[in-house]
Amino acid sequence: MSATRILSVNQGVLRLVEELRERAQELKVAVSTGAAGETVIDAGGSVPGSLEAGRLVTEICLGGLGTVSIGASERLTRWPFALTVRTSNPVVACMGSQYAGWQLTAEPGEESYFSMGSGPARALAGKEALFKDIAYADQNDSATLVLEAASAPPEALVRRIAHACDVAPEKLTIVYTPTQSLAGSVQIVGRVVEVALHKAHELHFDLGAIVEGIGTAPLAPPHPDFLTAMGRTNDAVIYGGRVMLHVTGPADAAKALAERLPSSTSQDYGKPFKEVFSRYDGDFYKIDGMLFSPAEVHVLALETGETFSAGGVDAELIDASFGG
Amino acid sequence: MSATRILSVNQGVLRLVEELRERAQELKVAVSTGAAGETVIDAGGSVPGSLEAGRLVTEICLGGLGTVSIGASERLTRWPFALTVRTSNPVVACMGSQYAGWQLTAEPGEESYFSMGSGPARALAGKEALFKDIAYADQNDSATLVLEAASAPPEALVRRIAHACDVAPEKLTIVYTPTQSLAGSVQIVGRVVEVALHKAHELHFDLGAIVEGIGTAPLAPPHPDFLTAMGRTNDAVIYGGRVMLHVTGPADAAKALAERLPSSTSQDYGKPFKEVFSRYDGDFYKIDGMLFSPAEVHVLALETGETFSAGGVDAELIDASFGG
Amino acid sequence: MSATRILSVNQGVLRLVEELRERAQELKVAVSTGAAGETVIDAGGSVPGSLEAGRLVTEICLGGLGTVSIGASERLTRWPFALTVRTSNPVVACMGSQYAGWQLTAEPGEESYFSMGSGPARALAGKEALFKDIAYADQNDSATLVLEAASAPPEALVRRIAHACDVAPEKLTIVYTPTQSLAGSVQIVGRVVEVALHKAHELHFDLGAIVEGIGTAPLAPPHPDFLTAMGRTNDAVIYGGRVMLHVTGPADAAKALAERLPSSTSQDYGKPFKEVFSRYDGDFYKIDGMLFSPAEVHVLALETGETFSAGGVDAELIDASFGG
Repeated sequence: MSATRILSVNQGVLRLVEELRERAQELKVAVSTGAAGETVIDAGGSVPGSLEAGRLVTEICLGGLGTVSIGASERLTRWPFALTVRTSNPVVACMGSQYAGWQLTAEPGEESYFSMGSGPARALAGKEALFKDIAYADQNDSATLVLEAASAPPEALVRRIAHACDVAPEKLTIVYTPTQSLAGSVQIVGRVVEVALHKAHELHFDLGAIVEGIGTAPLAPPHPDFLTAMGRTNDAVIYGGRVMLHVTGPADAAKALAERLPSSTSQDYGKPFKEVFSRYDGDFYKIDGMLFSPAEVHVLALETGETFSAGGVDAELIDASFGG
Repeated sequence: MSATRILSVNQGVLRLVEELRERAQELKVAVSTGAAGETVIDAGGSVPGSLEAGRLVTEICLGGLGTVSIGASERLTRWPFALTVRTSNPVVACMGSQYAGWQLTAEPGEESYFSMGSGPARALAGKEALFKDIAYADQNDSATLVLEAASAPPEALVRRIAHACDVAPEKLTIVYTPTQSLAGSVQIVGRVVEVALHKAHELHFDLGAIVEGIGTAPLAPPHPDFLTAMGRTNDAVIYGGRVMLHVTGPADAAKALAERLPSSTSQDYGKPFKEVFSRYDGDFYKIDGMLFSPAEVHVLALETGETFSAGGVDAELIDASFGG
Repeated sequence: MSATRILSVNQGVLRLVEELRERAQELKVAVSTGAAGETVIDAGGSVPGSLEAGRLVTEICLGGLGTVSIGASERLTRWPFALTVRTSNPVVACMGSQYAGWQLTAEPGEESYFSMGSGPARALAGKEALFKDIAYADQNDSATLVLEAASAPPEALVRRIAHACDVAPEKLTIVYTPTQSLAGSVQIVGRVVEVALHKAHELHFDLGAIVEGIGTAPLAPPHPDFLTAMGRTNDAVIYGGRVMLHVTGPADAAKALAERLPSSTSQDYGKPFKEVFSRYDGDFYKIDGMLFSPAEVHVLALETGETFSAGGVDAELIDASFGG
């Protein structure tokens, strides 16, 4: 491995962005040019979008460093289809790209807009403290940003995003999927490995030790109500997600991680996410951060060959959430 | 989405036809030029063919607008492998292309031949009333037709097919797979989503409302006897198929669809298909049309976020059919 | 099918070797040029490697004539991820290429080295009696060899390998993965169909009759100890593997094959492989050869459409092996 080459998440997604464009009609997404010259891909706002678009958007979120497949699953009788995410570069793919950590806000006097930015462009902007922790930054002359949003950002904000990424606005692509959309439902559940990494980071586990990530979770049925859709997609992971991480370093640390990683370790575990959310009056930041993790985890310590497992899928809670 | 571009199923399969040609030896299919200049791909008549050829032929049937995968499945203990079909364009892929709705017959005085035509060419010929209902027609200068047959059609019929599609015979590709063949067994079970759409149409459900389709069914073991092979492939869907449809429009209609869609609603449900067929003295059209549908269905009403489920897999009937 | 063209396993893997090279950084493999001018791909010796590298190396082992996928599996509660191998050319892919049958040894006076060679190059060298039995030989101007080893072979041995394959050393690629590595763990379990074919051959079943092979087995957790790693990867197949073979020829022969094929027919069945191995003081050749086969087999006789099943997964033994 060359130490001088950068594994570029922005370069890595160009073929996926091109695929979204070429298959736009089939995927029911709309590709247009925004006011600043940026490419805008609407994957479920004013167009229907599709599960397949969501699958591709999730692979874009992963910086082209992971695969997302949709298939049959026997784990939950009432919900027979699931997605599986796999990456041999979980830190760069999930933390360096997929994590929705870039706060994007209109400035005073501008058209109101807010969204958390996800995807490769984050690794060019490097706005988050997280990037120091993972020691990753991308260098590329094009940028791709993914937003869980119902509309594209206004021109002034787009220009600031391009500037932060140090790319011309014409070299910026913005993909957006509403929470309630078909593509959105895939894109959010597709974070099943990412939330495991994020929580591992919160638990001060050395992220550099996580060398493989595989996860699976049921496809959450979309819901037209934003809160219910948000609830279901989170529940798919929190009560239905199963993740395996391969880690280097001391087996004790792997064991401790496994024990603390499942969502069931959270004080807020046990109710559908929507209920938890409303209990805190819709203040996301009051929810116990430990809730955001897969239901079941398997941490494999490469040092000793031991696998530490904890947690488990809660079929009743999935039924209550998806069927409620 | 451009309103002027056509999602062309015939254009969409060219890369798949090319793949069949390039991998012909590996896939054990034979590619030749027919008497009218058409390309003929024998995927199991005078050559063995293969499951992988069947997978590709099924993707051709879907007009290149869906994916077919073969993998392990835990649903049926004795039959551990299944196929999964997924399309974000179920109406065009399944009704506009995959459905075997084009009756192809030799004329008086010609060499006898009969087969039901399936695949993209149907959407150029537009011979069936169905095309008005789904408001789809293809425009393309090449055509691809798939036949569940043991031999290729005679020259005169080929010329009529090319004429009906308004393409030169040299631009027509005909792929055929016998019911008893490896590829045939995949190709027929690969209709698990299509039969759901076809029955929905029979039930007067608005097909335009069906925006996603995913289905899975066990691989039916091929059988050298035509009737038994036909029985098993149908049973794979009727007693072993599971389908999820995402639909727009009124949730009431989605609920009614789910209740009426499973094969168990048919008066002919409950016996292996071969037995049903012989009970009606082999007259296909006397069989209750309601039998042709998946065993288990999940209809997701996007309007309300509700999922309506009905039916279920019948493992004993699958054992009786596949193991009988 | 042309009788004159050769299905070339060495030609067939070139795109996969190129993919390993292009994605080297992502896959954590190292590509270099050896002393004789050969290309050396280290997929887990002095670099970490990855599960995805292992998946590609397994497809290289299969001569490009099969697919390997990694996904979720519900068969074993504690081990939720599995790989599935599928080939429509099981004899050429598994016996002509994947089987580790080429004994590679340093000569007296040379740097000590020993490894069993696997992969397409074997079909150019044709050193094994097996090639007569399967009537297959490759012709190609490039060769690719896969070694389950912790280091690359020394120059003199490389030159002999190239000479045996009748290719210039510059046209030889050697890929190696240690047994203990991430890629190695995939590559060995990926032999789940191959061991079924090899044992069928030992049982004097006509290999030419085996026309399809599909198999699935749990991902074995890597272990830093060579013997434990070897034990687990073998146990994944012996106690966790499930295979389906489609065969031509007499159904009686298919039935007899199914009855004798599962690992449970071996007198050494019933203990983790590592224990069996140490019982024979580490002498591989004292172990009953009948042990090396999948836990569960399904042999489908195309002649009669009958499926003969035998054996079964032993979850407790997998737990003892993977969790021990």
